[in-house]
This record gives sequence, structure tokens and C-alpha cells, in this order.
Amino acid sequence: MRGIVMAAPGDVRVEEREDPKIIKPTDAIIRLTATCICGSDLWPYRGVEPVNHTPMGHEYVGVVEEIGDEVKTLKVGDFVVGSFVISDNTCEICQAGYQSRCVHAEFVSQTIGTQAERARIPFADGTLVATPGHPAPDLIPSLLAASDVLGTGWFAAVAAEAGPGKTVAVVGDGAVGLMGVLAARQLGAERIIAMSRHADRQALAREYGATDIVEARGDEGVARIKQLTNGLGAHSVIEAVGTHESMMQAIRATRPGGHVGFVGVAHEGVSLPADELFFSEVHLHGGPAPVRRFLPHLIQLIWDRKINPGKVFDLTLPLAEASEGYKAMHERRAIKVLLSL
Amino acid sequence: MRGIVMAAPGDVRVEEREDPKIIKPTDAIIRLTATCICGSDLWPYRGVEPVNHTPMGHEYVGVVEEIGDEVKTLKVGDFVVGSFVISDNTCEICQAGYQSRCVHAEFVSQTIGTQAERARIPFADGTLVATPGHPAPDLIPSLLAASDVLGTGWFAAVAAEAGPGKTVAVVGDGAVGLMGVLAARQLGAERIIAMSRHADRQALAREYGATDIVEARGDEGVARIKQLTNGLGAHSVIEAVGTHESMMQAIRATRPGGHVGFVGVAHEGVSLPADELFFSEVHLHGGPAPVRRFLPHLIQLIWDRKINPGKVFDLTLPLAEASEGYKAMHERRAIKVLLSL
Repeated sequence: MRGIVMAAPGDVRVEEREDPKIIKPTDAIIRLTATCICGSDLWPYRGVEPVNHTPMGHEYVGVVEEIGDEVKTLKVGDFVVGSFVISDNTCEICQAGYQSRCVHAEFVSQTIGTQAERARIPFADGTLVATPGHPAPDLIPSLLAASDVLGTGWFAAVAAEAGPGKTVAVVGDGAVGLMGVLAARQLGAERIIAMSRHADRQALAREYGATDIVEARGDEGVARIKQLTNGLGAHSVIEAVGTHESMMQAIRATRPGGHVGFVGVAHEGVSLPADELFFSEVHLHGGPAPVRRFLPHLIQLIWDRKINPGKVFDLTLPLAEASEGYKAMHERRAIKVLLSL
Repeated sequence: MRGIVMAAPGDVRVEEREDPKIIKPTDAIIRLTATCICGSDLWPYRGVEPVNHTPMGHEYVGVVEEIGDEVKTLKVGDFVVGSFVISDNTCEICQAGYQSRCVHAEFVSQTIGTQAERARIPFADGTLVATPGHPAPDLIPSLLAASDVLGTGWFAAVAAEAGPGKTVAVVGDGAVGLMGVLAARQLGAERIIAMSRHADRQALAREYGATDIVEARGDEGVARIKQLTNGLGAHSVIEAVGTHESMMQAIRATRPGGHVGFVGVAHEGVSLPADELFFSEVHLHGGPAPVRRFLPHLIQLIWDRKINPGKVFDLTLPLAEASEGYKAMHERRAIKVLLSL
């Protein structure tokens, strides 16, 4: 079968590799219907993270082709959406809603690579969720978004305690930030301030529910958020970038007692000043999103056409042209690229 | 009147200063019944924080001597307990429970100094709480503890979401850590692990409700907490020290999805690695405790003799001997020193 590897930073290739096989009785083999390129895939592309002939991809929807003997909730032919982290969904950590830190957690991106025609998914019952039936083609992008960016933006909004009566600010206008806007709206937030400098992303943010746009960043951006909130700061701030600057912007834009939900992948060397965190008196929570917690609800919202997260994909290419997709995202010509199969 | 100043690091003196007067109509003047020395007073004592003839003290109980025209909830003669942060208790931040970050917040330690015979308390209605009557003498130490260490330990336990079914670990065996143990017990925690190497503090921790003692620190201490919790870590961890080491010990001892309540005053230069915080997936919340939020409840618990936080004072000295009190705490001969008037 064909799959995408990154041979070296900036060097994305299609390779022929062996078809995956069932190894453990809890595995499933899926045939991918669609996959995509994540903002986090750009870190190795840009040489910020090491990469060496690495199978790429961790977002996926597809059809179950084969199941191990112990798989109980899925059958061959089911259309499924999976999380970017493998989880058993039964351990104490999963049951508390943190499937991304399951005692059996495994990152799909590091070992499996779903920018490919097929994939072996361990702990299939705990990782995959079947849709109510085979989806109409126009639902595929939205279901694919649920696999990571929607689930991640949703987790950020939940971690930031977005809800009725709340003012929510969103730092980062990439796909995850935009999904954070959508999630905050669905969770009932009163006011949603998207921090963005790009006209196309601002438009999509407004479509997803943003009530205000702030173009300023850093200290100036924080001052603007305070102006909009009686000098107090937002109740809830979603951080969807992962740099020191964006983290500090999020913390400083939050009122005392407010909540920061941070899902931008923080990189080695980024540190936070404990004294400022102490005196800010905010709540800080984030990390790799436990997408599996939210998948059943998100699938239903998509199935019922109550949300349309798939609009975040503004470029679709065949899998074979993945290299062009990476380039487009790297050059910010695309927010997010769907790879069709 | 007499008051304590720190002339320079390690140099604590009694000075004569002018009696405080009502300045604003929301002020009250109180005559101190008891005050005490805080662990945070040792930072300038040790030269870690700048000090220059600074009036000391921020914990206090006393009797109202005079009130401004706009004070409504207090009358002359009331016995009161106050928070170490001035608050109006009416602004949006106070109403959300964060009186320590009130829009009119002022630290008692930096401007007022309650290691003295009298003190002017701004926003008296919002800062002070009257007890149901004049307390029996044996209740004074406990009411004084409510002013800071009990309120702070309580906030840490609430921030760490200590409660029924939870395993709570406490990093730090000073007065605040011990109060964290007491609070976790009152909040219904199932198991409370005190991290302590001092026999006297271990004994008090057990008396306050600790079910387990861990003497190991750092990585070894974290490993021990994991051993005691099926390899997962504690649900709730109270951090009551404020160093990089203690913060990392607290974060690493917490299970994914668990809660760290940190109240050890973090000092400049202490930083936290954002990537580890991200992948740890813990909730982090802390800061200067909004003691005012908890005071009515804590006073009632003390009044009804349901808790005895005053046992944390293991040395009582007259105000004039404050210098010896600082020395005893600095040398760890005393956990916490009460200064009587």
C-alpha cells in the first residue's frame, strides 16, 4: 500500500509499504477514507523536531476491514472516526476522561502513520467510534476534523470552562483555534473574541461564532482584551499555539480566577514564570486532547448537521500530492489540508 | 503604639509608631489580640526578598475600636478575623470568590503591618468577619490561624479538588501544608499522604488527618506516591513550599487529569517547563489564597470546636520578643510563632 513518510525536514514522499495486519486480538485494520495534515506535522517539516523517514499522519476516518477476535463494539464495514491517541477506554485514567493519557496510550503519529491507505489501530474498541451509518460524502471532512482539531478545540474550550455568561478569548487562528471558537459557541459562551490578523481566518471565526476580532498581539493584545472586559480580562482563554509568547498572552488575558485551556503543543525549552502564574491566580489546564471523551457527542452533532467543522479544510489534494499539501500549510496558503483516498 | 519592623535581613525590632487613624469612611481601627509570624516573613529575614525598615505582619485577630461612617457590618467592640489581603468583597472578582485579587486588593504585609498593637483595615466590611461573640481564650490561636495559614491550606485543598474518594498528597510540612492536611480531611478526602521528614510535624499531620507519611523527596518521593496509588499518582496534590523542586514534585506526583493546588509563594526566577506541564495533563491552580471566601465557614468550624488549627502554633511569645520568634522559625525550632498582646 501507499503511505506518506517524511524522509527529512521538508522532504515529504509517497512510499510503498506492507499492508498492516492484525497483531493483537484487540486490533482493527481500517481502510482510510480521508486523512489530513496537522499543524503539528509542520514542526518536523520545519526542522524544529527530529524526523528521519518517519511515517506521517494521525488524523483519520475510514472503514473497518478486519477486526481481532476480542473487538466487540465494531464490525467489518463500519465507518469509524478515531482519536490521535490510542486508548483502552477502560482504565482508571480513561474512565476519568483522560484517554490521551490512558495507561496504554500510544501516539498514532509516532508509530502508525495514517497518511496512508490502511492502518492498524490497537485497542480498536477504546480508540474508534462508529458513525450511525455510512456518512454522506459532504460529512467526511467534518468527521475527519473530529479526529483531532475539533476534538482538541473542544477540549480547550472545556478546559477553559467556556459556557453561558462567559467571555472567551481565543489565542491562535489556526484550525484548532477556529475549532475552539466553534466549541465555545456550542458550549453557550456569551462573547467570543478571536485573536487573528488574517482576513480569511477572521471570516471563518465569525462564521463559527466569534463576536469580536482582536488583531493586536502580545501586551497590546492583552490590553485590548482587558478593554473589552471592564479591565478584568476574559473568563476563559483558549491557547492554541504553544509558544512562550502565546502562553503568556493567554495567561495575561485571563481574569483572576479565570481559566486557561491550552492545547498548542508546548515545545522543549518553553517555560512559564511560576511567580507570574501564582499571582495571576488563573486556572491552567491543557495537554494532548482526550478526543475519545468527546467523539460520540461530536459525531452526533456532525451527523445532525448542527456543526460544520469541515469548513476548516480549505485545500483538498489526493494522498499522492501530500508534499504539495505540506508546502501549502507551511507557507500559510492553506489553513488545513485534507488528503483524499 | 508598638509595632515590629524589620530594619534589615535578620534584624527584627520593636519600634514606637503613631497610632493608626481612620482615613476613609470604609476603614476600621482594630486593637490586636494576637498576631503571628508567617513562613513568608522569613524570605526577607533570610535576605531573599528586599527589606528596609519594613512594618511586618499580615495575620491578625482583634477587637474593633473605631469604624468609619460607611462601615455597615461591624460595630465597635466586635471581635474580628481578617484576611491578609484587603478586599471590597463586592467587585466582580470578589463575587467570583477571588478576594485576594479584588480590584481594590492591597497586601496587609506591604503597607499595614499587623505585628503591632493596632492596625487600620481598609474596606473593613469586605475584609473582616466578626465572630459570633467574644471567643474563649483557647479559641484565639485557631481564629488567628484562619487569617492566613488555615485559609491558605483550605484554598490549596479546594484548588486541588480534595474530596470524597480522593487521594491527596501534600508537599510541604510547614504550617500551610499541615493546614492543607486538615482541610483535605474536612473536605472528605479518603487518603491523605503527608510528605514530611520531621517527627513532630508528622505527628501533627497524623492528628490533622494524614493517613500516610512519605519521607522521600524529589523523584524518589514521586515514585513513592505512585507506588501508593497503583502507579497513577494522587488525584489531588497540595503544594505548600514554592520552589522549583517542590512544584515539580507536586506536578509529577499528580495523575493525568488530577489537580495541583499550589500556595507556596513562588519566587522570581522559578520557572516551570511548559512541555512537561502540557504532557502531564494536570490542572494547575493556586496563588494568594482568597481567605475572605472561606472565613465565615472556617470561623464557624472553629467556633463549634470541629477543628483545632491553632495547634499549629508551637511557640507563643509576647510581641516585644518577636525577634526571638523569627529566630526560632528560621532555625526550624518552631513551626509557627504566635505573638500575644
